[in-house]
Amino acid sequence: MPRRTLVTNIGELVTNDPAPGREGGPLGIVRDAAVLLDGGLVTWVGPSSSGAAGDAYRDAPPEIVDAGGRAVIPGFVDSHTHLVFGGDRADEFTARMAGQAYEAGGIRSTVAATRAASDDELRDRLAGFVAELHAQGTTTFEVKSGYGLSVADEQRLVRLAREVTDEVTFLGAHVVPFEFREDPAFGEPGSPEASARAADAYVDLVVGDMLDACAPHARWVDAFCERGAFTPEQSRRVLEAGAAAGLGIRVHGNQLGPGGGVRLAVELGAASVDHCTHLDDADVAALAASGTVATLLPGVEFSTRQPYPDARRLIDAGVTVALASDCNPGSSFTSSLPFCIAVAVRDMGMTPAEALWASTAGGAVALRRADVGAIRPGARADLVELDAPSHVHLAYRPGVPLVRRVWAAGELVAG
Amino acid sequence: MPRRTLVTNIGELVTNDPAPGREGGPLGIVRDAAVLLDGGLVTWVGPSSSGAAGDAYRDAPPEIVDAGGRAVIPGFVDSHTHLVFGGDRADEFTARMAGQAYEAGGIRSTVAATRAASDDELRDRLAGFVAELHAQGTTTFEVKSGYGLSVADEQRLVRLAREVTDEVTFLGAHVVPFEFREDPAFGEPGSPEASARAADAYVDLVVGDMLDACAPHARWVDAFCERGAFTPEQSRRVLEAGAAAGLGIRVHGNQLGPGGGVRLAVELGAASVDHCTHLDDADVAALAASGTVATLLPGVEFSTRQPYPDARRLIDAGVTVALASDCNPGSSFTSSLPFCIAVAVRDMGMTPAEALWASTAGGAVALRRADVGAIRPGARADLVELDAPSHVHLAYRPGVPLVRRVWAAGELVAG
Repeated sequence: MPRRTLVTNIGELVTNDPAPGREGGPLGIVRDAAVLLDGGLVTWVGPSSSGAAGDAYRDAPPEIVDAGGRAVIPGFVDSHTHLVFGGDRADEFTARMAGQAYEAGGIRSTVAATRAASDDELRDRLAGFVAELHAQGTTTFEVKSGYGLSVADEQRLVRLAREVTDEVTFLGAHVVPFEFREDPAFGEPGSPEASARAADAYVDLVVGDMLDACAPHARWVDAFCERGAFTPEQSRRVLEAGAAAGLGIRVHGNQLGPGGGVRLAVELGAASVDHCTHLDDADVAALAASGTVATLLPGVEFSTRQPYPDARRLIDAGVTVALASDCNPGSSFTSSLPFCIAVAVRDMGMTPAEALWASTAGGAVALRRADVGAIRPGARADLVELDAPSHVHLAYRPGVPLVRRVWAAGELVAG
Repeated sequence: MPRRTLVTNIGELVTNDPAPGREGGPLGIVRDAAVLLDGGLVTWVGPSSSGAAGDAYRDAPPEIVDAGGRAVIPGFVDSHTHLVFGGDRADEFTARMAGQAYEAGGIRSTVAATRAASDDELRDRLAGFVAELHAQGTTTFEVKSGYGLSVADEQRLVRLAREVTDEVTFLGAHVVPFEFREDPAFGEPGSPEASARAADAYVDLVVGDMLDACAPHARWVDAFCERGAFTPEQSRRVLEAGAAAGLGIRVHGNQLGPGGGVRLAVELGAASVDHCTHLDDADVAALAASGTVATLLPGVEFSTRQPYPDARRLIDAGVTVALASDCNPGSSFTSSLPFCIAVAVRDMGMTPAEALWASTAGGAVALRRADVGAIRPGARADLVELDAPSHVHLAYRPGVPLVRRVWAAGELVAG
């Protein structure tokens, strides 16, 4: 694959780089466009027909790729996944679809399978997911730990994740592991008092040895601030310790019910608070006044039959919204941002344009990345050619694999 | 591609051919299985490890395909599509998602675009859809006319459809075309009286010259029995005339509201009545006592935000249920049966196993085909290898393109 590629004859180019003469507001759409990829970056965007890609031929002619009038969009930025794990939970899924409720406790079986898996088993699995992400147009993705829940296992997960992405999140505070919850030293297992003591003791570990072991491999710290996982106070301890260790902050909040996660995230200046399904007016106002992105994860509500978050309300209030997959074996085993877009348009009040922006530029904001999520000179050359004339087809043709070719940092990675 | 292929090391083989020792009830699941494809047919199904594929080596060794422990299922049978058309309606989709109601009248713009398209334009489009269907595991599909609505245009559509499938349905009675509805000879256009007279006059054409022109190219006749399209009496005229011309009967019924479509279909011995969203107890009882399949089309309710049909109620009453895509540019532009399965499991009360059966064997019953929809000796060699250990993943991993390789009549058509 040559390093200089001119993708031309693009019927609709979504740049996420609005400028005079471009359409679609924030999408910055250019019709009949061409894009030059050079050295892994976008170096030029312009009309297909003008021959204006003059610089493209300065040294040597680039490889010419004809998009045949199709749409080209920025690579998807999936800012929330849990892709380092062993096993799957297909049986739990089937049981839930037959009426059983989803609870965070199901994570336990994945923790056991993950601890039991070898490094190479987890690596093979991760490699499969990376290929799957590429084939669906995702060119930047975050990966969280959180199925290890011991110092050694969490460190192993962030280390393995770091082999496939720069965007690694330490999520030791995913749930309180079995061996703490069932330890009679904290009182009668399952009692509120014992549960609280076990969680506090586990947080001591998370902010101590576990953070020390994981921080060198991670960019972010995250905590699952939710009834059944960690209180706002416990979450704050974890997030502040992570920040002190040089990590940026992300939060799981307000997924299963109202709670303090969103306001904690805003107070701590988190890059993103994820789920945001159950929000009161004060939560929305706090988000709107902040630099914290609300990352919505429609795959979760689809796969757990929970009510969807109200993206319309957030956008109308001025909140920056991202869409991500939350790909994990329990509550959302989709890795498809096109699927998330289709559901967000049907059930969360987003327009097709808003949903596309949220899963590309929005994801980039949620990861505080300026180099991805847009097609403009200087950005990383992450492009997706669709088998469709318009980005609208991502929602209009749900489930259809419309991703035709994918470039990541200028290299063809799918198609 | 050789004509004799042994697909082996199949972790989970769904045969839809239950037998003693097999699992999954109607799915007839075999673990660690192998399938021999010869001359376009399945000629042997058995264990992967036993070397029992003895006949496989009688003449010459077959090509060996290693499924790597993955799941293999029968090719999907999509018994309801509208794939011969020009243009698309992405703008209408965007408007509807912004709150505009869906009405059958939107079909008009597709009729205009279809009439304006050349044969080769429609052929190219169809070829694209066939490739798309294959890539998603669909190996048998029905195609309806219904965007021509004149003698010459309807004949053109059934003729073009016949180039890509044996399962062609004459749907002249899709809607009353513009030139009838707006003809002042029938009275004040849009008035109930004029609309009724225009529809009657159009039905005269459908059962006369149009049927004569189309029947030689079609296997089925269909009518859209719905308020705003055709009354039960008008639909009966079309269906009985089609049957007299040698065509099997299918019906669009009870999509947008209660009506007589289902009972008309049962009375006439239709192979299938499609949509079945608004049913009363008498409709369900009539279906259960009949040989008519209820074909459910979840893509429609997804893309129009209508309430879903209740598959659970139908299955529990003993009705045979099929799932199909209804792929069309207005109300359901998905061609993905995996997507339909995921929605049917989430929102229509089907188990993953029921949804898979309905989109394979159920589709075959809806088309009265004994040669497709199952993997058993003598059946057409239509197989789909999934990038997953179990068919459950089709629902568990919504939107993810899990179709890895596809054989249609023994030939590799995707992967």
